[in-house]
Amino acid sequence: MKRVAAIYLVLVLIFGLYVIQYLYKDTRGPVIQEGIKGSIDEKYVMVTFQAGIEYWKSCLKGFEDAAEALNVSVEYRGATQYDLKEQITVLEHIIARKPAGIALSAINPQELSSTIDKAVEAGIPVVLFDSGAVTSKAYSFLATDNVQAGVAAARKMADILSGSGKVAVITQPNQLNHQERTQGFMETIRKEFPRIEIAAVEDGKGDSLSSKMTMLEVLRNHPDLSGVFVTYANGGVGVAEALSVRQDAGRVKIVSFDTDKQTLDLVKQGTISATMAQGTWNMGYWSLQFLFHVKHGLAKPGSSANQGVSTLPPYVDTGITVVTGENVDRFYAK
Amino acid sequence: MKRVAAIYLVLVLIFGLYVIQYLYKDTRGPVIQEGIKGSIDEKYVMVTFQAGIEYWKSCLKGFEDAAEALNVSVEYRGATQYDLKEQITVLEHIIARKPAGIALSAINPQELSSTIDKAVEAGIPVVLFDSGAVTSKAYSFLATDNVQAGVAAARKMADILSGSGKVAVITQPNQLNHQERTQGFMETIRKEFPRIEIAAVEDGKGDSLSSKMTMLEVLRNHPDLSGVFVTYANGGVGVAEALSVRQDAGRVKIVSFDTDKQTLDLVKQGTISATMAQGTWNMGYWSLQFLFHVKHGLAKPGSSANQGVSTLPPYVDTGITVVTGENVDRFYAK
Repeated sequence: MKRVAAIYLVLVLIFGLYVIQYLYKDTRGPVIQEGIKGSIDEKYVMVTFQAGIEYWKSCLKGFEDAAEALNVSVEYRGATQYDLKEQITVLEHIIARKPAGIALSAINPQELSSTIDKAVEAGIPVVLFDSGAVTSKAYSFLATDNVQAGVAAARKMADILSGSGKVAVITQPNQLNHQERTQGFMETIRKEFPRIEIAAVEDGKGDSLSSKMTMLEVLRNHPDLSGVFVTYANGGVGVAEALSVRQDAGRVKIVSFDTDKQTLDLVKQGTISATMAQGTWNMGYWSLQFLFHVKHGLAKPGSSANQGVSTLPPYVDTGITVVTGENVDRFYAK
Repeated sequence: MKRVAAIYLVLVLIFGLYVIQYLYKDTRGPVIQEGIKGSIDEKYVMVTFQAGIEYWKSCLKGFEDAAEALNVSVEYRGATQYDLKEQITVLEHIIARKPAGIALSAINPQELSSTIDKAVEAGIPVVLFDSGAVTSKAYSFLATDNVQAGVAAARKMADILSGSGKVAVITQPNQLNHQERTQGFMETIRKEFPRIEIAAVEDGKGDSLSSKMTMLEVLRNHPDLSGVFVTYANGGVGVAEALSVRQDAGRVKIVSFDTDKQTLDLVKQGTISATMAQGTWNMGYWSLQFLFHVKHGLAKPGSSANQGVSTLPPYVDTGITVVTGENVDRFYAK
């Protein structure tokens, strides 16, 4: 009897083993649902120029955050200088390695197209961020709408001046993005704030010393100036110096652009009233999402899912945030 | 001895049970990596007006495709008519149920703002697609850039006419989106195609009968017309009828808008040379992605990840595809 009992026990345990193994097998299926997820050996590359400057840090952070969320890898490359040939060489090297995708900020809107097209034709997805290349075959362009940035700057200026006063614009009139910032600013002042007068629009030539000189000249011609919009970060720094020389700091309000450390420090100490932060994190984050979507066939030209409609949104406005003393601390690079 | 052997066997089997259970427990951990993934009880709602029309089908398909990829649920609701009050009521009901997010096509650019803001203030993420509401607190707007759509239409027209001829535009001059399509078309013709003359810009009043009458009038005044751009689908159908009445079909080339079945049939039989397909799938797909990102804190205002920069891209151009006889089959609703 005892032998029979032991044999029964063994049979019951074997059955138990089978049941447990079966249960685990069965539950593992439905538990593992993929979501949107890649593999860690998929490498996406971000390519810039003047690759060491602070401006790209937050773009790269967005790119990395998306990579972490999607379980893929990223790499950062770029021309070290402001040098077209160097960026083309860097890009050629990357294409030869066949990465999963390339997010490129183009140093020049025309001259990179044939290299970009070569990548696309080799089956490597390419999107452009920050600086575009209009005629290329890249799938999408993710960047600031500079006209809207000018609109936001105008509204902030009017807010600071309580809707009346004399203002100037210091800009770089030969660059499209700066033309657009100026245009958005001027149109909005004229349309929405009839008691604000635009007294001067001047070329600050891009560096802080020239911008300081330009501002001193503007102040000589318009001693009753109450505000100045500067469309580039160096200019804001230069204008702040001009005002401190004349001990006008505080009376003339500055609205500047971008969020490098010097500008943020000046916002923090109140010399610059506000600065326009570009949506650089968005540029990086959604660039990687778009590349991933093409790579994984989630968005595909001519697929039945999208009825032949273009693979990705051709343009994304990555947005502007107004930085003042109240929120400046959140903008220092981590 | 046999009893001892049986006991050993039992012990070995018990140990085996333990080991198997342990192994399964251990391997389940690392196998499950989340990617970007929600849970099926998260419900996102798409809200439209004239909810039964064909136009929304592909928007909803994009919304559903994103939901499937992200493992969440969706629901489709809307005002049955072109009725502001009905849409507000529908929206109020949905807000009361606290869904995970709302993608709304606003019937009116002003009157829905307070209801939208109520949703946002209740912690429900809201994005707008196709038709916006400029002053609301919605996080983003995903829609066609209608100026760009006009640009694409002009280039296609010039291509069809080999760069020379007399053209007309039939539009709805009181609606912003139609003004923009007309503007993009006219500016591009003037700038890029000096041998094309714009002979007339007329109000087709939105329905196919009025558009037919308008076209007949235009043809009386300009019997040598070689092309017409119509900024709305009904208009393309009406213009095609006008041409068939006069047996001018084939000589006067039509570039139309949107991809309802009647328009696609006319493209297929060659009466309409080309029509502009909006990126409706993109509207739905990226609306859900954006809502999901806010809901899951992947994009969050003021988080350290994005250094305080605005939560989501404020605007996405969902794109235009030119539909001709060559690719028309891919645009019929599945």
